[in-house]
Amino acid sequence: MTDTRKPSALRGLVGSRTRTLLAPRVTGQVRYTDDIHLPRMLWGRIVRSPHPHARIVRIDATRALAKPGVLAVITGKDMPERFGIIPWTPDEYPLALDHARFVGDAVAAVAATDERIAHEAAELVDVAYEVLPAATDLQTAIDKPEVGLGKGGKDNVSKEVDLAFGDVDAALAESEVVIAGDYYYEGSAHVPIETHCAIANLDKNGLLTVWSTTQVPHYLHRELSRVLRVPPTRIRVIQPPVGGAFGGKSEPFSLEFCAAKLAMVTGRPVKFLYTREEEFYAHRGRHPMQIHMKVGARRDGKLTGVDARTFIDGGAYSSFGLVTTYYSGQLLTLPAFADTYRFRSTRLFTNKPPCGPKRGHGSVQPRFAFEVSLDKIARALVIDPIELRRKNLVPPNTTTLNGLRVTSNGIEQCLDAVERASGWKDRFGKMPKGRGLGVATSAYISGTNYAIYPNAMPQSAVQLKVDRSGVVTVFSGQSEIGQGCDLMLAVLVADELGLDLGSVRVISGDTDLTPVDLGAYSSRGTFMNGNACLMAAREIKSKLVAAVAEKLDVDPRNVLVTRGALVVVHDPARGVSVTEAIQLAEAKFGTLGAVGHYNTPKLGGEYRGGTIGASPAYSFTAHVAEVSVDARSGFVRVEKIWVAHDCGKALCPTIVEGQMEGSAYMGAAEALLEEHVIGPDGLHKGPNLLDYRIPTSLDVPDLHALIVESEDQEGPLGAKESGEGPLHPSIPAIANAIFDAVGVRVDRLPFSPARVLSALRKKQADEQATATAAAE
Amino acid sequence: MTDTRKPSALRGLVGSRTRTLLAPRVTGQVRYTDDIHLPRMLWGRIVRSPHPHARIVRIDATRALAKPGVLAVITGKDMPERFGIIPWTPDEYPLALDHARFVGDAVAAVAATDERIAHEAAELVDVAYEVLPAATDLQTAIDKPEVGLGKGGKDNVSKEVDLAFGDVDAALAESEVVIAGDYYYEGSAHVPIETHCAIANLDKNGLLTVWSTTQVPHYLHRELSRVLRVPPTRIRVIQPPVGGAFGGKSEPFSLEFCAAKLAMVTGRPVKFLYTREEEFYAHRGRHPMQIHMKVGARRDGKLTGVDARTFIDGGAYSSFGLVTTYYSGQLLTLPAFADTYRFRSTRLFTNKPPCGPKRGHGSVQPRFAFEVSLDKIARALVIDPIELRRKNLVPPNTTTLNGLRVTSNGIEQCLDAVERASGWKDRFGKMPKGRGLGVATSAYISGTNYAIYPNAMPQSAVQLKVDRSGVVTVFSGQSEIGQGCDLMLAVLVADELGLDLGSVRVISGDTDLTPVDLGAYSSRGTFMNGNACLMAAREIKSKLVAAVAEKLDVDPRNVLVTRGALVVVHDPARGVSVTEAIQLAEAKFGTLGAVGHYNTPKLGGEYRGGTIGASPAYSFTAHVAEVSVDARSGFVRVEKIWVAHDCGKALCPTIVEGQMEGSAYMGAAEALLEEHVIGPDGLHKGPNLLDYRIPTSLDVPDLHALIVESEDQEGPLGAKESGEGPLHPSIPAIANAIFDAVGVRVDRLPFSPARVLSALRKKQADEQATATAAAE
Repeated sequence: MTDTRKPSALRGLVGSRTRTLLAPRVTGQVRYTDDIHLPRMLWGRIVRSPHPHARIVRIDATRALAKPGVLAVITGKDMPERFGIIPWTPDEYPLALDHARFVGDAVAAVAATDERIAHEAAELVDVAYEVLPAATDLQTAIDKPEVGLGKGGKDNVSKEVDLAFGDVDAALAESEVVIAGDYYYEGSAHVPIETHCAIANLDKNGLLTVWSTTQVPHYLHRELSRVLRVPPTRIRVIQPPVGGAFGGKSEPFSLEFCAAKLAMVTGRPVKFLYTREEEFYAHRGRHPMQIHMKVGARRDGKLTGVDARTFIDGGAYSSFGLVTTYYSGQLLTLPAFADTYRFRSTRLFTNKPPCGPKRGHGSVQPRFAFEVSLDKIARALVIDPIELRRKNLVPPNTTTLNGLRVTSNGIEQCLDAVERASGWKDRFGKMPKGRGLGVATSAYISGTNYAIYPNAMPQSAVQLKVDRSGVVTVFSGQSEIGQGCDLMLAVLVADELGLDLGSVRVISGDTDLTPVDLGAYSSRGTFMNGNACLMAAREIKSKLVAAVAEKLDVDPRNVLVTRGALVVVHDPARGVSVTEAIQLAEAKFGTLGAVGHYNTPKLGGEYRGGTIGASPAYSFTAHVAEVSVDARSGFVRVEKIWVAHDCGKALCPTIVEGQMEGSAYMGAAEALLEEHVIGPDGLHKGPNLLDYRIPTSLDVPDLHALIVESEDQEGPLGAKESGEGPLHPSIPAIANAIFDAVGVRVDRLPFSPARVLSALRKKQADEQATATAAAE
Repeated sequence: MTDTRKPSALRGLVGSRTRTLLAPRVTGQVRYTDDIHLPRMLWGRIVRSPHPHARIVRIDATRALAKPGVLAVITGKDMPERFGIIPWTPDEYPLALDHARFVGDAVAAVAATDERIAHEAAELVDVAYEVLPAATDLQTAIDKPEVGLGKGGKDNVSKEVDLAFGDVDAALAESEVVIAGDYYYEGSAHVPIETHCAIANLDKNGLLTVWSTTQVPHYLHRELSRVLRVPPTRIRVIQPPVGGAFGGKSEPFSLEFCAAKLAMVTGRPVKFLYTREEEFYAHRGRHPMQIHMKVGARRDGKLTGVDARTFIDGGAYSSFGLVTTYYSGQLLTLPAFADTYRFRSTRLFTNKPPCGPKRGHGSVQPRFAFEVSLDKIARALVIDPIELRRKNLVPPNTTTLNGLRVTSNGIEQCLDAVERASGWKDRFGKMPKGRGLGVATSAYISGTNYAIYPNAMPQSAVQLKVDRSGVVTVFSGQSEIGQGCDLMLAVLVADELGLDLGSVRVISGDTDLTPVDLGAYSSRGTFMNGNACLMAAREIKSKLVAAVAEKLDVDPRNVLVTRGALVVVHDPARGVSVTEAIQLAEAKFGTLGAVGHYNTPKLGGEYRGGTIGASPAYSFTAHVAEVSVDARSGFVRVEKIWVAHDCGKALCPTIVEGQMEGSAYMGAAEALLEEHVIGPDGLHKGPNLLDYRIPTSLDVPDLHALIVESEDQEGPLGAKESGEGPLHPSIPAIANAIFDAVGVRVDRLPFSPARVLSALRKKQADEQATATAAAE
């Protein structure tokens, strides 16, 4: 009876299926960045390079400036400062200074009195280019170092990571089976429904306010200051609710700098809104990767070694590429892994839109290669693929061979759950031809131990304001991008203080109002801000308890926070409402407010070539996908996906399930439909929503979200991430299900009808050849 | 060298003439309530009584509701809950329940798709009235108790206060001179340029947001909850910058309740904007008062006793009337006063727009009577009026006979300053006929010791957020109504932490974002919020100092905050920038934030009939006015006013001078032009800016603001109020100057040409009669 730390049991909010706070989003009441209109606001438009690689010889804005309604034209010379999200690799300019590196690279920007004039004026900016040799695909970048897109111009290398753990060659040599394969991921885009938008306004106090669809308001704040050479104290970044991001808005973009600069130049507010075409060129989508992977195993299925050689198509700039390159190897060692490991990943620059982080950043592509390899091994050894994985699971509370410290680990329960729910034992390998099941697993980080820029300060912080009316306001720098992170903080605070959700407000993503959080990336939001929130809420709680104990004349240890009231443990009829407790505490201690902060525990060693992105906790996922394949057309239909995900603790199951379903949906889309193809001319094959296909609601598989809870020691009330991890297994589970259905492997994404049909025909031809040979 | 508490000397911000933060207001960039437009917003319009006193027999909205574009009509029955700013006298309904008590009383409200339709629909609401006998002037209210506007309907009394200190009758009986007079103040309005406006929106989370031009967001929050029967946790009150208020927006008004209720009824946002005519009827302006005052003095000028009998015309409702009635007597005993005192003040209800607080609340009218009485005594005793006051000053650090605890008191310096600046000694009584000088003094409160509703919680609180970029955000519940209080907090925080003003943001007046402050009334803003701000800023400062001391390896006592840097006292070349200090402290202590709060010291006794509005500190003012009077027309021109004001410490002299000039301007306007006259029919004589005259910029006297600093022990860095006190002496100084110029007393306001001319003719007639009598 004295345990006051069991919120879910006692207060009933954590784990409940609340949808409070989400209503404005689903009823159209949310006002997005583009909904903001300021008096005298101008429209901006970026002039973009039509060449994949060119030197900018001259920019003549005369014709544009002569057009009525055009107020300003700026070029690279107006902001000659490099930036980049990773402090070690700044290689972009807001507007290209002297070289354009891809079709769509920003070279100038105009501001005009309306959108139409801005677009027309952009066409009137005359740019003289000297066209240069280009590498518009990965192979050319590998084969032609003389294009010189890399640092120093000697080659096209963006980043290389080469790490080994144990003697892989010896392990593979001693293996009973070694599966070697080549896997290719074409690259995909985020396709948020809301395209990038930014508005800037310089007020008469000299304060520059930038509203942006960013996922990293704090980082944008820093970079705006540095690039524009304006003190950070004169800049406010506001991130209105974002209409989808998925990693595609997690770094500064040209439009934010251009809006700010043009606002400073013209003295009027300026808005930029990317068209859908521009959105595809701005990109930062998932990297194309070419992976050669060898995986060895003993006869009993125990994995012996993994050897991976990966080439990563980075596009024109570094973006998060340094991290991508590490992640392409480092995040493979969970949940099942071999005894030895070596990977060498090389990211190359190409004259294509720059790639960056997309949901599941860095590890979706190698995960595909690895999980398909496991399926091949299982087939070779005639072991059930789920059993094969069970034999190789990394246990809880351990450290992987590459130094990932694992705390809670619910992968066994995840495998059990999908096995049971899918009827795996009765159906795998036993269904009619054309129908199949496939399994895959993965693990993902709950934030990283490394701040996005080196500093000793907290990674997340939350400030609470407690009002005597019973309202608690949570100020958090986190970025609500539709993932529901604001609701998570509300649940934590409400639960801790016994409030209902309608009494909690969350203000997020505003550098003037909210403490620093590093941004919505690496699945760090709820984990880090949640911990910060609990720290602050518990400080408030202790004051409420003390004030109530004094009022009721009992020992504070005997005061229990329940939903709506603080009561005496052994006499729950005695108590005061939370609002009254707040007023008692305010009278006793003064106005109530608190700051909570979070930093990851000091974990993760140094590795050759740098640090790794070790996380304070890992989520785990298992998928079983069921597909049907039409052998005549090669058309694959994903019928169902069972998704079991260890999220530590489901603070709000509705949100966790939404994330699981959304991730599996996105994985399935990448498996079957999405490909972000750039032609030899540097042009996107179809930068619009007719040609670039994402599944409509009619195309969505039947998704079954199975929550697994492992109550992690590091997470807020035990919670871990759920926003990215559930994506990874979709692609290999579907690939493996296709094999189960029709016996072919398609090791190149997406699994389009043409590719499947080609594989089926090849198989048929091979079988006929074999039969003919046997007959001869 | 170790004194780190001399911010003005060391950091140079306090006392500097900054105008930072004021720019958006004077350049038109501020967005006021009426600038807010919400999607699908409706317009509201109030249906008002055409009768000064009537029973509402029936309301039929059929015709209004039939009009296309009309969405709803509400009446008193929809919100049958009384409210009022003073918790002991709630006597208003958002819409009259069964009785209308003045022409303009709200009886119904409509919501329609645009403003024109709303106004037309209001005309279509059919209200049947039973007209009742009315009291539309003070004398009728005194003479005809049977009108029954008071509680219980037996009389028209709103409030009576009857207090005596010492044996006044005996003192007056022993006086060498007793001046008795009747004084009348007609009443005046606030005439803010921005009329009342409110917008309400109920979002899909069930949160009711009300934007209002209020001066009391916290109180409005409470009353909206109580009257609408909506939990306070479901209400957010936002006070956008207000375009003038002067006390006229310091209580809830019909429009806020109606906007909220109609938003709840229609599910759409609703805006009300009072027309100028409605603004005059909503009123709460300065009370008409009829004062009979006797003041006695010894031959040497020492005042012996004051006996005041005051009738106060309250209009239809209580409003702040309880306080007004106390203030009409209690605030007269500073800066100069007699040995004994008695006052009896009776506030009566009349069928007129309700009166309330206007800048200088409650004491402007008796101050006029008293300071003119002093002038008459001085004349009678042939003592210089400034000398007469000097003989009767209450000293610093004392308590008045009615229990006001005085701390600092710069009235002597104020008198010296105006005497010197005006050339008093050479010019008073020595100028050509038609030109004259007059003097008057006053004192005023810096907030009251009594919260506007009884509670043990802080009266003001401030929360600080400290950003690692070097920005400090001040969250304060205070109400910026153009008086510059946000700038005051910015100055205090910036000075304390060594920041420049551009690094400080102030967020105020938003019940969701800001801690509770009780409102912008009683000149409490800078005094109370400033103290709260210093408490929070000093907590942050101590962390910065500790972190810097650690970094520089010195004793924290040797770290000094200077502007822009924290340095070592004896070696100021050693130091770190404030921004770096913030980052060091954030790394050492975690994210920085702090709450500061303020409550007045427990002062002020209980008096018969209740408590008095004792203040933690009093400001002091002396005026000398110079007038010219045209004897042919009676036209008075105020040529100059010298205003010396003891504001304790001028945190920002620009703002203090602005307040002094604005106050003197407003006093001069009341002296010469303003009268809020209601006719026997209950109609305002001219509810528009052509008929109700306020001085244009061409009419403004030459104003000379002379700041006197007394460094009060209770105020933030020594500051006291400056927003109201400098108004009071204007009227009597002008009255006394008129006497100096042309030898007539006009004891009834305003000093219109007709009144002055009439007084001159009477004087001429009297003189002729005297001459004739002498000749006979």
